[in-house]
Amino acid sequence: MTAMPPAPPAPGPADGAERPGRIMEREIREQPDALRRLLGAGAPRIREVARQVAARGPRFVLLAARGTSDHAALYAKYLLEIRLGLPCGLTSMSTTTAYGARPDLRDVLVVTVSQSGGSPDLVASAKAARAAGAITLAVTNNPDSPLAAVSEYHIDIMAGPEKALPATKTYTSSLLALYLFVEGMRDGDASAAAPLPDLAAELLDRRDEVRLLASRYRFAERMVITSRGYGYPTAKEAALKLMETSYIPALAYSGADLLHGPLAMVDNISPVIAVVTDGKGGAALQPVLDRLRGRGADLMVVGPAAQVERASAGFVMPEPGVAEEVEPVLEILPLQQLAYEVTIARGQDPDAPRALAKVTQTR
Amino acid sequence: MTAMPPAPPAPGPADGAERPGRIMEREIREQPDALRRLLGAGAPRIREVARQVAARGPRFVLLAARGTSDHAALYAKYLLEIRLGLPCGLTSMSTTTAYGARPDLRDVLVVTVSQSGGSPDLVASAKAARAAGAITLAVTNNPDSPLAAVSEYHIDIMAGPEKALPATKTYTSSLLALYLFVEGMRDGDASAAAPLPDLAAELLDRRDEVRLLASRYRFAERMVITSRGYGYPTAKEAALKLMETSYIPALAYSGADLLHGPLAMVDNISPVIAVVTDGKGGAALQPVLDRLRGRGADLMVVGPAAQVERASAGFVMPEPGVAEEVEPVLEILPLQQLAYEVTIARGQDPDAPRALAKVTQTR
Repeated sequence: MTAMPPAPPAPGPADGAERPGRIMEREIREQPDALRRLLGAGAPRIREVARQVAARGPRFVLLAARGTSDHAALYAKYLLEIRLGLPCGLTSMSTTTAYGARPDLRDVLVVTVSQSGGSPDLVASAKAARAAGAITLAVTNNPDSPLAAVSEYHIDIMAGPEKALPATKTYTSSLLALYLFVEGMRDGDASAAAPLPDLAAELLDRRDEVRLLASRYRFAERMVITSRGYGYPTAKEAALKLMETSYIPALAYSGADLLHGPLAMVDNISPVIAVVTDGKGGAALQPVLDRLRGRGADLMVVGPAAQVERASAGFVMPEPGVAEEVEPVLEILPLQQLAYEVTIARGQDPDAPRALAKVTQTR
Repeated sequence: MTAMPPAPPAPGPADGAERPGRIMEREIREQPDALRRLLGAGAPRIREVARQVAARGPRFVLLAARGTSDHAALYAKYLLEIRLGLPCGLTSMSTTTAYGARPDLRDVLVVTVSQSGGSPDLVASAKAARAAGAITLAVTNNPDSPLAAVSEYHIDIMAGPEKALPATKTYTSSLLALYLFVEGMRDGDASAAAPLPDLAAELLDRRDEVRLLASRYRFAERMVITSRGYGYPTAKEAALKLMETSYIPALAYSGADLLHGPLAMVDNISPVIAVVTDGKGGAALQPVLDRLRGRGADLMVVGPAAQVERASAGFVMPEPGVAEEVEPVLEILPLQQLAYEVTIARGQDPDAPRALAKVTQTR
């Protein structure tokens, strides 16, 4: 019999020279400050952009993005539909860039979300949208980017340089920037966002809990992540984060879609992670959680204490009093840490997943 | 040493009494006739609905669907954007059903696609859309369904009763119905669809080739399926079909999104299936195929002979002369058969995946 291998050393707060994951770890920890910066220095400018866009009276919104930014765009879709009553769509970029479609985009707001603002297909599609009469808005972490240049309006998410390949702080900063934008369009006071920086800092301090959860998934061969409503972008982003760092295939489904087929794949050896928002999305997910429990699924819940208690494992979110529409800024945090910790436990480097480049040159 | 288990018996054309998969197998084979029926008896009515909808002058289209029908809706999104220049979005149903969003839908065509026409959330969302001023169209396999009743217009896909849980003939019939509808809206002659029934029959006769391919994937622990443009809905539908029948986790990504993260997960033990359309979508996928080959991925291609030759395995599509916009009706056929054959090889019953019901009662 061999002795149990020792647990991986707990990473300290300072940057080790070549320690795997030190960049991603640092960027995860920078999130409370990045959110604070955006709420302070960034908010007035976002409100002004929102005011100008609202004055143009868009009737429809199209959102264009890839990867992590696509999940931020999906969050914006929920905000725009629910809080502004504006019908929205996520663009299929290839219709413009490969097929040369030139839709009539008068009265249409086209929002392009991109951390780098450098992907050629996003730049081309924003340019084409503007030429087709759209109101164009770029949301990026780089005001000097080609995407910002070709768009009529620009919002800087002010997250500071992001060096790790898996995007973390640019994701939460994009979410908050989009929330502030939508609140600005409806002339709301955005007060629900005020507690986010402090709450984010508290959540990130609960790293030991995440390390325990990570030990559950170290040997997982696949995962299913589900949610509904405002939590659905979190499920998709958590799946991407786990895949690109740990290489564990993680399949994200809205709870409703899970029942239309993929549920057959869930069994008691495939763990399920459910993001249960404290609100209407979480309530709509309830029948799905019951079905999963009925099938004996190993269920980890990120959500309210009452939900975590009924699951196999979980991470309790702060409650009550956080508005459901800003919960996604917080719910992704333990899942980013989970991706990081599982990857470290598997002996891989989360900073530099194989095969990836920071600015993806798709056309 | 144990002897190799015998290969599973080749299923014959007639219905065995209790043979696993006999219903799905029969429904797969019914597709050429279903397509022929729709092109004959169904087309005039679809053209008339299209004419009436076009006269209303919609500016924007929202598509609502779940599961397999959602992939048919995605196909319609490409058609509507590329061939009609109408901006489109896929709806997030929960914004209406869980959050009570009431967007302004004047000038908006809302197309709801559902095999059964019975899912409560789709009925509720179509009803809400109509109350919000939308032009509502239901595309179903059941003219007497609640969804058809609450929608202003209805298209019957005329696929006949579908009994197996995995949808096959209702998928290709939905694709063709949506193609005929979009062609009707642009007053096209839809002639590109004429060869589909005969070509479908020829493809389905090449079942031995698919059984050979199935032997490659019998023990696969996961799969990645990719495409771009018109082929992307096929990738998503193939992934769902494989998952719900064989329970192999199959991850579908557009080629562009694959490079934004999930590529890290691809290695030489995870097979990749690429749907390479003979047209602009296939051309746009080329750099992704090069990256995959560069990483030593095991690549199976469904597409033109020249593409199959450069892959590890594949299924050659008929060429040339099939218009790219109707290729999806054909490309899914060998992948439906692949899902069927892999499932049979694994000793499971494709007709009745565990945990699924034919009409999914999501709300």
